Amino acid sequence: MSKINTKVLSGFVEHLPNVQLEFDAMRQVIFDVYKAHGFLPIDTPLIYASKVLLAKAGGETEKQIYKVLKGDNDLSLRFDLTVPLARYIVEHAGQLNFPFKVAQIGKVYRGERAQLGRSREFYQCDADIIGKDTLDIAYDAEAISLIMDIYQKLALGKFTIYVSNRKLLAGFLQGMALKDKQVAILHIIDKVKKISASDFKAELKKIGLSDAQVTELTEFINLKTLQGFTLQNETFQQGVAETTTVIDLLGKMGVGKHVQLDLQIVRGLDYYTGMVFETTLDDMPEVGSVAGGGRYENLVSNYTQDTYPGVGVSIGLTRLFAALQKAGKVGAGAVSPVNVMILPFSSAEFEFSYKLAETLRMSGKRVDILVQDMPIKKKLRYADKANVANVIVIGSDEVKSGRVLVKNMQSGEVNDLDEFLRS
Amino acid sequence: MSKINTKVLSGFVEHLPNVQLEFDAMRQVIFDVYKAHGFLPIDTPLIYASKVLLAKAGGETEKQIYKVLKGDNDLSLRFDLTVPLARYIVEHAGQLNFPFKVAQIGKVYRGERAQLGRSREFYQCDADIIGKDTLDIAYDAEAISLIMDIYQKLALGKFTIYVSNRKLLAGFLQGMALKDKQVAILHIIDKVKKISASDFKAELKKIGLSDAQVTELTEFINLKTLQGFTLQNETFQQGVAETTTVIDLLGKMGVGKHVQLDLQIVRGLDYYTGMVFETTLDDMPEVGSVAGGGRYENLVSNYTQDTYPGVGVSIGLTRLFAALQKAGKVGAGAVSPVNVMILPFSSAEFEFSYKLAETLRMSGKRVDILVQDMPIKKKLRYADKANVANVIVIGSDEVKSGRVLVKNMQSGEVNDLDEFLRS
Repeated sequence: MSKINTKVLSGFVEHLPNVQLEFDAMRQVIFDVYKAHGFLPIDTPLIYASKVLLAKAGGETEKQIYKVLKGDNDLSLRFDLTVPLARYIVEHAGQLNFPFKVAQIGKVYRGERAQLGRSREFYQCDADIIGKDTLDIAYDAEAISLIMDIYQKLALGKFTIYVSNRKLLAGFLQGMALKDKQVAILHIIDKVKKISASDFKAELKKIGLSDAQVTELTEFINLKTLQGFTLQNETFQQGVAETTTVIDLLGKMGVGKHVQLDLQIVRGLDYYTGMVFETTLDDMPEVGSVAGGGRYENLVSNYTQDTYPGVGVSIGLTRLFAALQKAGKVGAGAVSPVNVMILPFSSAEFEFSYKLAETLRMSGKRVDILVQDMPIKKKLRYADKANVANVIVIGSDEVKSGRVLVKNMQSGEVNDLDEFLRS
Repeated sequence: MSKINTKVLSGFVEHLPNVQLEFDAMRQVIFDVYKAHGFLPIDTPLIYASKVLLAKAGGETEKQIYKVLKGDNDLSLRFDLTVPLARYIVEHAGQLNFPFKVAQIGKVYRGERAQLGRSREFYQCDADIIGKDTLDIAYDAEAISLIMDIYQKLALGKFTIYVSNRKLLAGFLQGMALKDKQVAILHIIDKVKKISASDFKAELKKIGLSDAQVTELTEFINLKTLQGFTLQNETFQQGVAETTTVIDLLGKMGVGKHVQLDLQIVRGLDYYTGMVFETTLDDMPEVGSVAGGGRYENLVSNYTQDTYPGVGVSIGLTRLFAALQKAGKVGAGAVSPVNVMILPFSSAEFEFSYKLAETLRMSGKRVDILVQDMPIKKKLRYADKANVANVIVIGSDEVKSGRVLVKNMQSGEVNDLDEFLRS
């Protein structure tokens, strides 16, 4: 009989248990930082009516969507956590406390061409702050500051958070009378770091910019500071004020040294309206940005007349982890989650072993018992392969005397139970 | 403009943040118990080629499946965690340590008629032990014992774990020369607690049992003990031996008082081959069984010629939580996850507040800062609505003196910072 292939689908990832432990630990660090800052957890469904999910989506998103079939309904899998959040806010607004600080970690689905580090099923780790009617700019600084806390706790080395503000470019384009081309221009700028200067220029010219406009725009997005640059345009000046305030607050938070203005940062998603930011690992620039976000004023406008401005940060954990794995920075250390493994010689020692395990677990230890019938040598090999730190062998002597020894598998050191419990 | 409905789909659940906190805490308890027993985490994809998922599925499952469309592939969402595990084992067998103890917590999808407590998207919390070639019966006892640990830690009150063994019924039916009707008979017995005695009888007669056979079978499944019941059938005697061993081991683990033999327990899923078990909350029998499982010898047979017998327990957390919520046992206590909320009077106090928050977080406290511009009275109302335990108000005096007071929102008591940090 021909057997069915057990591989996961292309673009899908699953880890061996020891790697999964590291992945879970990273996810926990991110969630703990969000919670330490007062963000409340929610867990939204993965499936929605397509019209709910795609109300704001552009053409690219729609092409990448996974459709779901059940009965006659046109359903889709979520492609991010932001759209599910937008409708959550509207649905439950009456019972939420605004500004509402909310954290979501979950899987999302995009049918992208499966290439290096681009998964079709991946975890996003989002923290958002949503206001009712207004949301102070100080929350933009808080969203950005979360990145520092997380990157430091994950010990990812030096990193730079590049910040900009959509209003700077919008105001600048208004001043150049290019407002009607803004969406197309932002999409081209979003690619500037990935394409050559001549391709960048060619793309801008293709949508109708003159040589002079291309030069002027290129100079603008390469500015390293806004000081000395003046423009009589209200949107631009709002952008300057917001950016200045945010950078000032980040300085007060101790995040300043990681932050750099970069007018090339626009973020691909059309819903951003103000501050935008991305993060690069200085020693691994090839990873690209896996932590970014921004301010969105109108995300809920398809669902309600009310105004709920928001700002959020999203960490693409699956991609970050894949990059760290490729660089050999995770996935190497295979550490068992248990503190000790009990190896009874035979089933005659099960009862004693069960009671010992129970005692140890009551003291907060994580305890495995190997009850498969095999020679003690093979049991020790199993414990070794499992990378457990300590083993306790239980034979008839131990049962008779009640005296138990804990052997450290690394050092070979042997301790009695009380010492182990104190450790 | 007509706005889009933001409700979740029928059969889908999302919680308010305070309820989500309780749900997450329960999930964490379950995962912690699994880890304390040495189960290793894995996280399998949600989407598979339909032929992989449905290799072993019966007709009912196939009707409930959510199909996924992406390109030309026939894909489906997983409907349990056991089938994804079966193929995981085969795919990664060379790198696993057998007996492999594995824990999975994740969402699964079944398009059931959305009725009381039956969700279409729900969490399963599974722990399985998989052997290579053989798996000792002691692991069946361990799988069952996890339920006690979890139910006690969740403080769910008195509960009963009903155990049986498929081989008992199989052997009995062989003895009655009804082996060819076994699958159909098991499906009817699986419903016996939900239908009337006359309906039960009618269903058995419909598939060809005589009155005498119905009577004999009914008497058998109502036995409270196997003592005194003899049958010269190998399968039956194996079942007796396994059941006796498991109940004996459960006694040695201290689980015995929660365990009861019940020959009506068969579990609907066809892949079980040995021990089967379900759990009922004694004070809430209407909840039904949300923690059950059993032994399966042949689950991987569609994927490989090799033998990987397994035994597992699955907890239907979404359904359990819904039942507890309906009974008013969860969802009432709205506790903030932060230890303290800092309320700066105005942006002039942000810098001081940020540094204070940083200090507190370094000491392990979870700290929120309310930076939205609003009157202090409204800020206190916000903190009250958020159910935070403590607040620190920062005005110009605090900034000048550096002296900070922590107010307990419940007792009204005021402490200085050092006292709070020691608490």
